[in-house]
Amino acid sequence: MLPRPSGIVVLLTDFGSRDPYVGLMKGMVLRQHGKAQLIDLAHDVAAQDVALGAFFLRAAAGRFPPGTTYVAVVDPGVGTARQAVCGLAHDCYWLGPDNGVLGEVFAAETRGQTWSDLRYVDWDHLGFGPVSRTFHGRDVFAPLAGGLAGGRVGFTAVGPRCAEPVRVPPLVAGPPRVVHVDTYGNLVTNVPATAIANVRSVRIGGRSVPVRGTYADAAPGALLSLINSYDLLEIAENQGSAAATLGAGRGAQVVLEN
Amino acid sequence: MLPRPSGIVVLLTDFGSRDPYVGLMKGMVLRQHGKAQLIDLAHDVAAQDVALGAFFLRAAAGRFPPGTTYVAVVDPGVGTARQAVCGLAHDCYWLGPDNGVLGEVFAAETRGQTWSDLRYVDWDHLGFGPVSRTFHGRDVFAPLAGGLAGGRVGFTAVGPRCAEPVRVPPLVAGPPRVVHVDTYGNLVTNVPATAIANVRSVRIGGRSVPVRGTYADAAPGALLSLINSYDLLEIAENQGSAAATLGAGRGAQVVLEN
Amino acid sequence: MLPRPSGIVVLLTDFGSRDPYVGLMKGMVLRQHGKAQLIDLAHDVAAQDVALGAFFLRAAAGRFPPGTTYVAVVDPGVGTARQAVCGLAHDCYWLGPDNGVLGEVFAAETRGQTWSDLRYVDWDHLGFGPVSRTFHGRDVFAPLAGGLAGGRVGFTAVGPRCAEPVRVPPLVAGPPRVVHVDTYGNLVTNVPATAIANVRSVRIGGRSVPVRGTYADAAPGALLSLINSYDLLEIAENQGSAAATLGAGRGAQVVLEN
Repeated sequence: MLPRPSGIVVLLTDFGSRDPYVGLMKGMVLRQHGKAQLIDLAHDVAAQDVALGAFFLRAAAGRFPPGTTYVAVVDPGVGTARQAVCGLAHDCYWLGPDNGVLGEVFAAETRGQTWSDLRYVDWDHLGFGPVSRTFHGRDVFAPLAGGLAGGRVGFTAVGPRCAEPVRVPPLVAGPPRVVHVDTYGNLVTNVPATAIANVRSVRIGGRSVPVRGTYADAAPGALLSLINSYDLLEIAENQGSAAATLGAGRGAQVVLEN
Repeated sequence: MLPRPSGIVVLLTDFGSRDPYVGLMKGMVLRQHGKAQLIDLAHDVAAQDVALGAFFLRAAAGRFPPGTTYVAVVDPGVGTARQAVCGLAHDCYWLGPDNGVLGEVFAAETRGQTWSDLRYVDWDHLGFGPVSRTFHGRDVFAPLAGGLAGGRVGFTAVGPRCAEPVRVPPLVAGPPRVVHVDTYGNLVTNVPATAIANVRSVRIGGRSVPVRGTYADAAPGALLSLINSYDLLEIAENQGSAAATLGAGRGAQVVLEN
Repeated sequence: MLPRPSGIVVLLTDFGSRDPYVGLMKGMVLRQHGKAQLIDLAHDVAAQDVALGAFFLRAAAGRFPPGTTYVAVVDPGVGTARQAVCGLAHDCYWLGPDNGVLGEVFAAETRGQTWSDLRYVDWDHLGFGPVSRTFHGRDVFAPLAGGLAGGRVGFTAVGPRCAEPVRVPPLVAGPPRVVHVDTYGNLVTNVPATAIANVRSVRIGGRSVPVRGTYADAAPGALLSLINSYDLLEIAENQGSAAATLGAGRGAQVVLEN
C-alpha cells in the first residue's frame, strides 16, 4: 500500500545559498501544493558531488514522517538524455535525477521493497508545462514533488518502472578512509560501528588517536575517535578541528589498531 | 480584484545567515499570522546591493502561488526619511523600502497593472507599535507582511498611492556584460535569449566560448555558454567554475560573435 | 497557567549549514508533530560559543508568538553527564543543555517567573527511544520539542525542577567592549542604550566615532556609532564594514566620550 503523503517536502541540492535557486524550487512546490511544509536538508553539497548527496540522503531515511517527499537535485547531466526517477522506500517518496543520487537510500531499504518500486518520470505524460534545459529542480522536480506531496499525482502515475537505475560507488565503499569533513572539522570515515568492536585506536596522519565514547571524553584540544551519529567511525578534536590539526581531509587513509 | 492572501511570505534580504536577523523577522511575521508559511528566497545579496535584490525578486515573480506576500529588505536608508512601499503585481503583494528594490518586479508586470498599484506604507496610521531606527525588517516590514498574509491588513489600507517610486538602473541594463556570478561560478550576463538567435559564440576574457544547450553539452572542464533559467546568456564551465577559469566577475565585458 | 503550544519551533545551533544536522533535527520534530512550523534563528554560532548562543536567544525573546518552543543546541558536553533542561519564560518553552545557553533568557524574564520554572529533562521517563552519544539535537532535543509543540508532552511531565542551572558569564558582562561582529562588519558592543545619554562619541582603535541615529546619518564610507536593534551601542560604517576599516573584532575595547 502506498504511504499517504505527509505534505512534507525535504530538499537536498548543490545549489548553495547565495542564489535564489532553492527558493524558486520551493515556490514551484507551493504552486502545486499550497500547504506543503518545506524543509532544507542540505544545499552546500559540493557542486555535482553525487556520492555525498546520496550519503546525506541515506542519513535522512527514517528521520522524517512516513509519506514525506524527498527531492535531491545534484544533477550535472541536467538537460541531457538522463532520466528523472521517483522511488518508494522507507515509507516515503524519493525524487531525483537517475544518476545514483538515490542509490544509497534504496540500498539501505530493509522492508522487502526492491528497485521495482522505482519509476522513470514520464514528463510529457504528466503535462506540467515547459521545462528549461538548465534548471530541472525548478521546472521538473519541484512541481512533481508538490504534486506528490499534495496527492494530485499518484506514485504509479509518475511513469514506467525503472529496473536498472544508474549507480555510483557509495561514498562509504572502499578501504578505510575519511569520506567527509563536517562543519566542525570532524573527519567522518567509512568504517561502520560494527567493525570496531576490538579497536582501541585509529592511526591517521602519523598520529594514533584513541577510541572514546563522545567528544568531551577527551580534554579540550585533544584528538579522539568515536562512533558518530551516522554510526560511523569519526576522528575529532574536542572543541577544535581535527581536520586542521591533522591537516587531513576527504580521502585520508585510516588504519584501525587493536 | 485583490488576490486572496495565500499565507505564504517570501523573504529576500542582505542580512546573511550568521546573525538572527532573518529569524527575528520571521517571528514578527508569525506574531501577526501564526499560520504563515515562511520561505527564504535569498539572504546573501551583497550588503546594500539593491540592483541584485531587484533582479532576484523579478526571477521569483510568477514562481509562487497567487496571493503570496514578498518582502525585500535591502535597505541602506533604513531609519531615514525614505518611505516604505507596498505594491500589487503578478497577483501577489510586494513590500520593501522605496529605493528601487521592487523596480524590476513592477517593470516586468504584464497584466495592465501600473505603478498606481503601489502604495506608501503609512506606519503611524497602521498602529503596529514602536520602531527601531536600524531594523525596519523586524519592526515594520515583517509585521506588515504578517498582517497582509493573514488578511488582518487589507492592501488598500496600507497607505496612500505612490505615483513616483524611486528607481535604480536595472542590473540587466547597459552594454553586454556579466551582471552576477552564481554559486557555481557561472557568469550570468545581461544578454537576453532573444538577442542570441544568430550568435554562435561569446568572447570573454580573451576566449571564444561556443553557445550550447546545457552544461553537459561541453566536456567536463570545458567552457560553454547557454541560455540559463533566467532566460539570459550565461558563460559556464561544465563541472567547474567559469569565474575561476576566466578570472572574470561582475562587470566583465562580453562580445557576441556570429 | 501554561501557555498553549503555538506549534512553532525555533532552532538555534552551532551546526552550520554544510551538513544535514539541522535538517535531521527538523525531521525528528516533525515525527512528533507533523504540523510543526520550523524556524531557523541562527546556526552559524561559532562552535561551542555558548555565550553568543545565549545572547542571540535573548534577542528572540518576545519576538515569536506565545507558546513557541525554542531549542538551543550549542552543546560541547553532549553525551556526558551534563543535564538537559526545559524552561518556561516569556510565555514560551525553552529547551537546551544545562550549560548556560538558556541563561540570558531567564535572566531577562520580567514577569515574576523564576528559575523554579526550569526543569531537568528526565529522558528515561519520557521514553522517546535510543539516544546516540554525539547528537542529542536529533535524538533528544528535537523529539522533545516536537512533543511539547504538539501538546503530546506537557511541560510539567518533562522532569523534576532544576533549582541551580549551570551559568556562564553573559556576553554583555564586563567592561565596555565589542561582543559580536555581525554580517555587515558592524561592531556590536555590550554598552546598553541607557548608558549613553550624554555620550557624544566613542573611541575605538585610536579613532573617535560620533554617535548618530542610524547608518545613513553618516556619509557613505564614514564611521558612526548608534543604538542598534539589540538596544546596544554599535560601531558601524555606512555602506561598509567597520570591522575591516578599524581592524577591530570581538573583545576590542571601547571608550565612551562625553
